[in-house]
Amino acid sequence: MTSQMRAEIGEQPDALGRTVGALLPRLPEVAELARDTRQVLFIARGSSDNAAVYGRYLVEAHTGRLSTLAAPSIATAYKRRVDLSGVLAVAISQSGKTEEIVETLDWAAAGGARTVAVTNGAGSPLAEAAEVALITDAGAEIAVPATKTYTTQLAALSVLALGLGADVAVDDLRRVPDEVARLIALTEASPALEQIVEALAQVPGAVVSGRGIAFGTALELALKIKEACYLHAMGLSYADLLHGPIAVVDEQTPALLVAADSGPTLPGTVALARRVEGAGAHAFGVGGGEGLAEACTAALPGPALPEWVAPLGLIVPGQILVENLARRLGVDPDVPRGLNKVTQTD
Amino acid sequence: MTSQMRAEIGEQPDALGRTVGALLPRLPEVAELARDTRQVLFIARGSSDNAAVYGRYLVEAHTGRLSTLAAPSIATAYKRRVDLSGVLAVAISQSGKTEEIVETLDWAAAGGARTVAVTNGAGSPLAEAAEVALITDAGAEIAVPATKTYTTQLAALSVLALGLGADVAVDDLRRVPDEVARLIALTEASPALEQIVEALAQVPGAVVSGRGIAFGTALELALKIKEACYLHAMGLSYADLLHGPIAVVDEQTPALLVAADSGPTLPGTVALARRVEGAGAHAFGVGGGEGLAEACTAALPGPALPEWVAPLGLIVPGQILVENLARRLGVDPDVPRGLNKVTQTD
Repeated sequence: MTSQMRAEIGEQPDALGRTVGALLPRLPEVAELARDTRQVLFIARGSSDNAAVYGRYLVEAHTGRLSTLAAPSIATAYKRRVDLSGVLAVAISQSGKTEEIVETLDWAAAGGARTVAVTNGAGSPLAEAAEVALITDAGAEIAVPATKTYTTQLAALSVLALGLGADVAVDDLRRVPDEVARLIALTEASPALEQIVEALAQVPGAVVSGRGIAFGTALELALKIKEACYLHAMGLSYADLLHGPIAVVDEQTPALLVAADSGPTLPGTVALARRVEGAGAHAFGVGGGEGLAEACTAALPGPALPEWVAPLGLIVPGQILVENLARRLGVDPDVPRGLNKVTQTD
Repeated sequence: MTSQMRAEIGEQPDALGRTVGALLPRLPEVAELARDTRQVLFIARGSSDNAAVYGRYLVEAHTGRLSTLAAPSIATAYKRRVDLSGVLAVAISQSGKTEEIVETLDWAAAGGARTVAVTNGAGSPLAEAAEVALITDAGAEIAVPATKTYTTQLAALSVLALGLGADVAVDDLRRVPDEVARLIALTEASPALEQIVEALAQVPGAVVSGRGIAFGTALELALKIKEACYLHAMGLSYADLLHGPIAVVDEQTPALLVAADSGPTLPGTVALARRVEGAGAHAFGVGGGEGLAEACTAALPGPALPEWVAPLGLIVPGQILVENLARRLGVDPDVPRGLNKVTQTD
């Protein structure tokens, strides 16, 4: 049986290619808008918030600008004006129709921020509200769990970082579509896929961890497992996991560890895998190269991409894992309970 | 059997009284240090990070200054300089000895930030590193799960907000110690306590939710349940819960909902309780007054305090719940597995 979610996972190379092609020429526009700003404020919820976590680490680590994840309730519930002069506000929403996000972007503008929208909804209220709208070209997404709209958001955020002067090579971004195509085939041919699906089908929950630029990927994988497989998946940073909740990792609670093949947070992730395995629990890797694979019970392949763009591919084996696990558990991955495509919060 | 954790829960009225008494006279010092800053950057991990979430909402909602939770890996792993001129950096650590936190505060100073430490460790490396050290006077904390060091951190952050000109009444803060004493007695006399302990003893996990100024309390309660009771407790904001993971709430996964007795986020929390109950799952309340109690299967009392200082009391019924649940599950709450009192990351 092939699900709509699986079909949309497969559309990602094309969607990423179109989005990168459409947005790279707009770099000067982003640079111009950001010229008088010194920092970035991301406004998002759900999967888009996990994309924002990627944006946050990317912007801080590669442009040296402070980045903040907004607390929308300050705008929508407390209705408190905050001084946002010198701030570039970046609102991220798949549909561009979530009222809370539009309202929070308007609040940011009223506080003095310059505004950007990242959305798949051309002509949506969010796109109309922003000074610069970076439209992802993912096409219509039918399955409820976000896949191609999420990875194309990451592509838009990569373009944003380039517009802010990130110290990275733009050609890395151009390599992403082909690498994602290769990774889909590689993941589905990997014997680790069925092994990890079977292991997760036997347990009530799992911990999902990653650090730095890969942290958002861990959060997104945890969210997908929660929403499409109903497991208790806790997305935790490597450091926060060590500050207490490592206690929940045991033979009934494996850890999924996500990492790029390179970068300064990889050694700590490998060490965490060894610690989990040493405690008698299972660590399953996603990416992280040979080093992480060897430290884990089983590991899915990751993209052969530099750390800064690795998240655009790193979630893909996780998406395939979730789609397979949902079907294994008897859940229709296209229509999990409790989810709507456009969520309104207050 | 009385645990050390229970004893330390009972020491909180005195610890809070001492801390408030010692720190309120230092308001002018905080105001002077913050004079040329426009925003706040909190640096913390674990329970202290949950305290920082309170500080973040408090500062934004009541002083109109943008607040950010730092990503320490930018300092410690990526070693990237970020422009922090105009930023007040506030590092929070119970011991004051966690190297990652000291290193990140030093990084903030190097980036141009003014620096504050909130710590129970007078003379600790963190206290020495900061321009202003707000020392909590919790006394020695022996039990591994933080209780009085956490609530006194919240008291220090209340003082910080007052120093930044928060539009609140300082007398509210002075009422906290007596109210916490009253709340401890009230909680232990509540029939809901045993009812909720028994319900949680039967399930693999729970969702813990709260919004705005109460969000940090939800995260802290989730962390305590994870680390001392080994349940899969997911701390989620009200809004993020609606954006997907509401799917995990079912008859096997109750929701613990935390709210102050007043404030703009209370109505949404009550509505969430009704939604959870309407879906056939159990909602258990902590605080939120009559309105939340009526919408829930059972509810623990909350503090009779204005929303802005409510978190200083709101965690207390949760601490008592965790201590009772740990013992019910056969865990020694004073020494849960996997935890050390001072955590070193990297």
